[in-house]
Amino acid sequence: MLRTSSFFTTSLTRSALLQANRTFATSLASRLAIPATQKAVVFDTNNGPLVYKDIPVPTPKPTEILVNVKYSGVCHTDLHAWKGDWPLAVKLPLVGGHEGAGIVVAKGSAVTNFQIGDLAGIKWLNGSCQSCEFCEQGNESNCPQADLSGYTHDGSFQQYATADAVQAAKIPKGTDLAEVAPILCAGVTVYKALKTAGLSPGQWVAISGAAGGLGSLAIQYGKAMGYKVLAIDGGEDKGKFCMELGADAFVDFRTSKNLVEDIQKATRGGPHGVINVSVSEKAISQSCEYVRACGTVVLVGLPAGAVAKAPVFDAVVKSISIRGSYVGNRADTREAIQFFADGKVKSPIKIVPLRELPKVYELMEQGKIAGRYVLDCQDV
Amino acid sequence: MLRTSSFFTTSLTRSALLQANRTFATSLASRLAIPATQKAVVFDTNNGPLVYKDIPVPTPKPTEILVNVKYSGVCHTDLHAWKGDWPLAVKLPLVGGHEGAGIVVAKGSAVTNFQIGDLAGIKWLNGSCQSCEFCEQGNESNCPQADLSGYTHDGSFQQYATADAVQAAKIPKGTDLAEVAPILCAGVTVYKALKTAGLSPGQWVAISGAAGGLGSLAIQYGKAMGYKVLAIDGGEDKGKFCMELGADAFVDFRTSKNLVEDIQKATRGGPHGVINVSVSEKAISQSCEYVRACGTVVLVGLPAGAVAKAPVFDAVVKSISIRGSYVGNRADTREAIQFFADGKVKSPIKIVPLRELPKVYELMEQGKIAGRYVLDCQDV
Amino acid sequence: MLRTSSFFTTSLTRSALLQANRTFATSLASRLAIPATQKAVVFDTNNGPLVYKDIPVPTPKPTEILVNVKYSGVCHTDLHAWKGDWPLAVKLPLVGGHEGAGIVVAKGSAVTNFQIGDLAGIKWLNGSCQSCEFCEQGNESNCPQADLSGYTHDGSFQQYATADAVQAAKIPKGTDLAEVAPILCAGVTVYKALKTAGLSPGQWVAISGAAGGLGSLAIQYGKAMGYKVLAIDGGEDKGKFCMELGADAFVDFRTSKNLVEDIQKATRGGPHGVINVSVSEKAISQSCEYVRACGTVVLVGLPAGAVAKAPVFDAVVKSISIRGSYVGNRADTREAIQFFADGKVKSPIKIVPLRELPKVYELMEQGKIAGRYVLDCQDV
Amino acid sequence: MLRTSSFFTTSLTRSALLQANRTFATSLASRLAIPATQKAVVFDTNNGPLVYKDIPVPTPKPTEILVNVKYSGVCHTDLHAWKGDWPLAVKLPLVGGHEGAGIVVAKGSAVTNFQIGDLAGIKWLNGSCQSCEFCEQGNESNCPQADLSGYTHDGSFQQYATADAVQAAKIPKGTDLAEVAPILCAGVTVYKALKTAGLSPGQWVAISGAAGGLGSLAIQYGKAMGYKVLAIDGGEDKGKFCMELGADAFVDFRTSKNLVEDIQKATRGGPHGVINVSVSEKAISQSCEYVRACGTVVLVGLPAGAVAKAPVFDAVVKSISIRGSYVGNRADTREAIQFFADGKVKSPIKIVPLRELPKVYELMEQGKIAGRYVLDCQDV
Repeated sequence: MLRTSSFFTTSLTRSALLQANRTFATSLASRLAIPATQKAVVFDTNNGPLVYKDIPVPTPKPTEILVNVKYSGVCHTDLHAWKGDWPLAVKLPLVGGHEGAGIVVAKGSAVTNFQIGDLAGIKWLNGSCQSCEFCEQGNESNCPQADLSGYTHDGSFQQYATADAVQAAKIPKGTDLAEVAPILCAGVTVYKALKTAGLSPGQWVAISGAAGGLGSLAIQYGKAMGYKVLAIDGGEDKGKFCMELGADAFVDFRTSKNLVEDIQKATRGGPHGVINVSVSEKAISQSCEYVRACGTVVLVGLPAGAVAKAPVFDAVVKSISIRGSYVGNRADTREAIQFFADGKVKSPIKIVPLRELPKVYELMEQGKIAGRYVLDCQDV
Repeated sequence: MLRTSSFFTTSLTRSALLQANRTFATSLASRLAIPATQKAVVFDTNNGPLVYKDIPVPTPKPTEILVNVKYSGVCHTDLHAWKGDWPLAVKLPLVGGHEGAGIVVAKGSAVTNFQIGDLAGIKWLNGSCQSCEFCEQGNESNCPQADLSGYTHDGSFQQYATADAVQAAKIPKGTDLAEVAPILCAGVTVYKALKTAGLSPGQWVAISGAAGGLGSLAIQYGKAMGYKVLAIDGGEDKGKFCMELGADAFVDFRTSKNLVEDIQKATRGGPHGVINVSVSEKAISQSCEYVRACGTVVLVGLPAGAVAKAPVFDAVVKSISIRGSYVGNRADTREAIQFFADGKVKSPIKIVPLRELPKVYELMEQGKIAGRYVLDCQDV
Repeated sequence: MLRTSSFFTTSLTRSALLQANRTFATSLASRLAIPATQKAVVFDTNNGPLVYKDIPVPTPKPTEILVNVKYSGVCHTDLHAWKGDWPLAVKLPLVGGHEGAGIVVAKGSAVTNFQIGDLAGIKWLNGSCQSCEFCEQGNESNCPQADLSGYTHDGSFQQYATADAVQAAKIPKGTDLAEVAPILCAGVTVYKALKTAGLSPGQWVAISGAAGGLGSLAIQYGKAMGYKVLAIDGGEDKGKFCMELGADAFVDFRTSKNLVEDIQKATRGGPHGVINVSVSEKAISQSCEYVRACGTVVLVGLPAGAVAKAPVFDAVVKSISIRGSYVGNRADTREAIQFFADGKVKSPIKIVPLRELPKVYELMEQGKIAGRYVLDCQDV
Repeated sequence: MLRTSSFFTTSLTRSALLQANRTFATSLASRLAIPATQKAVVFDTNNGPLVYKDIPVPTPKPTEILVNVKYSGVCHTDLHAWKGDWPLAVKLPLVGGHEGAGIVVAKGSAVTNFQIGDLAGIKWLNGSCQSCEFCEQGNESNCPQADLSGYTHDGSFQQYATADAVQAAKIPKGTDLAEVAPILCAGVTVYKALKTAGLSPGQWVAISGAAGGLGSLAIQYGKAMGYKVLAIDGGEDKGKFCMELGADAFVDFRTSKNLVEDIQKATRGGPHGVINVSVSEKAISQSCEYVRACGTVVLVGLPAGAVAKAPVFDAVVKSISIRGSYVGNRADTREAIQFFADGKVKSPIKIVPLRELPKVYELMEQGKIAGRYVLDCQDV
């Protein structure tokens, strides 16, 4: 059963709810001790039953914080983790989830950067070694020892989750914890992809798959960063939705007779950058065609077996770059959250109770989700 | 008939020849007028006869110089131009060649940056509009109006060739014109590719196809730029040759049982950059595998129909970049020539008379050429 | 006598005028031949009389265009050229002016990038060699042979001016020629300075001297580029003006008791970049203090004898950069004009007839000018 | 009493000593427990007595390692810390030193990146928060909570020192611990300064103060990075020394009649970058004059009260950058050590017993030190 029935609920309603939640949470924090057990959704084997049940509250290590998770977004990656169809083994049994927003309720002895009561986010990269050549240079998501929330480390589909204090996201006081949840992964990911495109303000960026969960955030981040945004998707409604989000132009791949030509025309020579949130192989290949000479095609989705293909001759003569963009680092996360906190980016969400996770996966597999589902971890 | 039978002819012989040529040329310039006709190799149709004959000496436009070509390198691109197997039409009839080194003997009224008697180079990019968004930013090889020597503009397989004065290469006084010829395209191309990899001194660069004409220059430029160079090629002799040129390590793709593993071991985690002068599709795909996370794979050769392929999942999770690198701009050209003039890079050549061009193409098609053939345009 | 009495004249009035001008101009171009003489403001010696008189219309060289100047902005640099107080000699006699917007009425034989009837701009850098190491890399304003409009080359304070076709600005059809005039120097200059600061969208940039001619453009460009803008100037009115232009915060240096502290507080730790359009030595030194660690202080004004000073200890420990930014190159010019054409930047102007130039200089010396004066070169 | 009397002791002698030290150390580590007390040089007040005495061995925190210091370099910063003449208070009483090389003998419970027996380096930045905007982006030396060895944290002038495990330098097995000691600060500092200059291989870098401790390392790093190095210092001997280290040219500021002209001539237009290890105000100002247009002047020394000065007009018209470079981050440290380990950089040292520190300070104050003094912390 969905508690909220439409996306973009009015800010009045949302902030009233938020206020209530916050008051409740704060009084809880001061009054109650951390319980010994909590509610969580757990699975023991890949593709096995998703069980909503009581499990022990974890104890943070000296370098970790314990977060009382209020809301958690649900991402396609969570589905992959459950199904186990990626070439990377998951911890079992596992509590999934890596878009958790909540309140710090305990911390290890070596933690200095969080105080009890601070708002904090559980994100995909739960922790990293901080010491390898990748961590040293802010590429911590490429750390060979990366610890991943909801994958190799129990995640945010529970009421109390641990996170490495250095990697945990700082969330400014007063932020709506439900709406910020999807920013912690989806938002950061598209923001990082846009940075990876290496554009200058005033240049054109195309978003391929613009009306989806990642795409709708990408349009908004792109505009906030000063770019001209071309949205690409299929269908009139989606076109309208993209333009409302701020896109400067829309090309409908369903009705276009010559997609490459139409995109190059709309952007006077082709976009300087392309963000492929669509994971279609064909869309990726086309993006190598319509991108402007010297431009950058960014790969950001993680389709199970897709291959990016580009004719060598064209890639060389046009001097294009094809770049994989994974998840953001700590700085990207802070910046992406700041754009949200500044009101430059809205996060369209639908809130359901934590226990409804299996239904969300079902809808996701059926391709029936637009925007982002967020689980209310307090609604038990 | 080959006049010089081995590569790396001693500098004594070469510089004696050079001296003779220079003296001759200078006295000619002061004594003789520019002739009305000259020798050239011309073809009227793609794949048609390559005719060595007399044609008129061209007259430079107001913005052009006229170069008395002394030597011209022969590049695979010249073969493509003659065969017409690229998706870009050539001028017909055509004088090929785009690695011509010679002396300025005349210039248009608007030319201020060259004096009669200066050494100058005819390069692939004969001229560009200087005014489009690509020219404005030093990406003039991407200019939609690019004029290409030996392709859309008669090139250096003749004794007198015209070149846009802004684009023509400046060659320092005293430079060996035969040895510098291949630098004008092959040298600049690999130097640009190395710059495109965006490496820092001390990092590892792999050269795939290291013992060939481009590869052997790439090894030397790589070392001069402060990188650690891993050479990849097949055969013991080639390995020895690469190490002599300065490579820090060699991996033989013919004998390696696990190429990816061997390369990652030799470079302690994979090269930070890869220059694919080899045009094999398989080699390109492998380079996406063995490159270090956050590293850059550069495509530089122009195989007729090859496709670069990389699994999206790996590209994203490893955050790699695949970048096409075309030819260098004016600054790249000046820098590449300077490395040569400073003695950091040797150019292994074999000199034959201009009229022998058809034989060179024959050897090229048979894959029998190592190093670079250079035509002596004065040997008539 | 001032024809327009207030800045930000309504777009209705301005565009009606524009329409009239354009119709007039177009019909002229088709109907009339280029005259032999024209009106201009000329001076024979530095500080000598500024004479409004008839002079011959110049003839473009093979690589030049002839522009029928409709409007020309007046810049402080023009005053310096007349007074001769910079360490760089001017051509004498001289026609000043380097913010001229008009219509191409003739062109040299080698010009291919402009057609008769195109809109074109005369800018500070009239022409450069296109061949030195600076021109090669898009740093053409640093070319040792730079030819400067209104300084070493007769400028835009005349009805017909010549410009090197490669350097002349392209102005999109339909652009208001009076309003775009100040963009050609003032706009490009602050846009370039903002690029020189090397900021990312979402970061803070401080504009020191924000309410002046350059500053008011800098605020707008900064916002269009996705930055958070802190305006610094003196007086309540100026603060109000800056906030209306889009600044996110304002600090009044006249009333602030601790400028460094107030700026760092307003920007949560100091701006990531500072654009010093103010030329006060003290303001420049202060900017080195309040800038965020690892931030960039940009120098952009050209005060006659000022010295930038920063304590070495602080500069090192804070790892700051101090960078001089001169004028934009061709790409910067195209981009700055595009922001204006897209309506992201408004240009506050006051229009007076060409013959009123001496009065404008008088006001300028008295420090009585806010915004930009533009001369109507057709109002004779 | 100096145990080693000349710099550049033969590698044979040094490596024999090293071998002995290592064997000794290893057997100790396996056989002996960590003692309760150790030798150290301590001062209670700024400028107070430097006392060589027994103090307790410190206990590492959960995130720290305990290093058995074998050798420690002596840096000018240590002198400043003792004298207390910098605008930053030191911990008192204090054990100075921040160039300590030794062996890990204990570690906190949260440390995963070091094993007992690993070689480790104590460097200037002992630890940082890892969580602020500076730490996030690899600018950890700008962290407001930076903990500094030999300044706010007891340093390497003792036999057992603690260091944050994330920040401690990793030293490859087999490295000469005495020679690597100065690399940990002096080497990293000049390497970082060279990176800050943002040069490309083949460009000219000038080292102002080239024959000193920092300068002699800068010459070698500059060459290893592919730059052309111009050394600037005073005296024939120093010139000879610089050329032996690999400099491409030398200008003697004592005999030059026009330093700016001579430098610009030697570098054909001025160096693209300047590293000011000299802390003279005049030398810094001159470097802003002779640097090439668009070039970068790097400030790296920390003179107590010096001010960097540049005329605004020249800085703007030449578009130069003046950049402060502090100490390297973790990646810079790893890279600088790797250049040393690869044999690209030699570290000229003189070894004396730990107890001789006061004498070294004396020589330092008298300006009598060339190269670097290294304390043998085991020679008790």
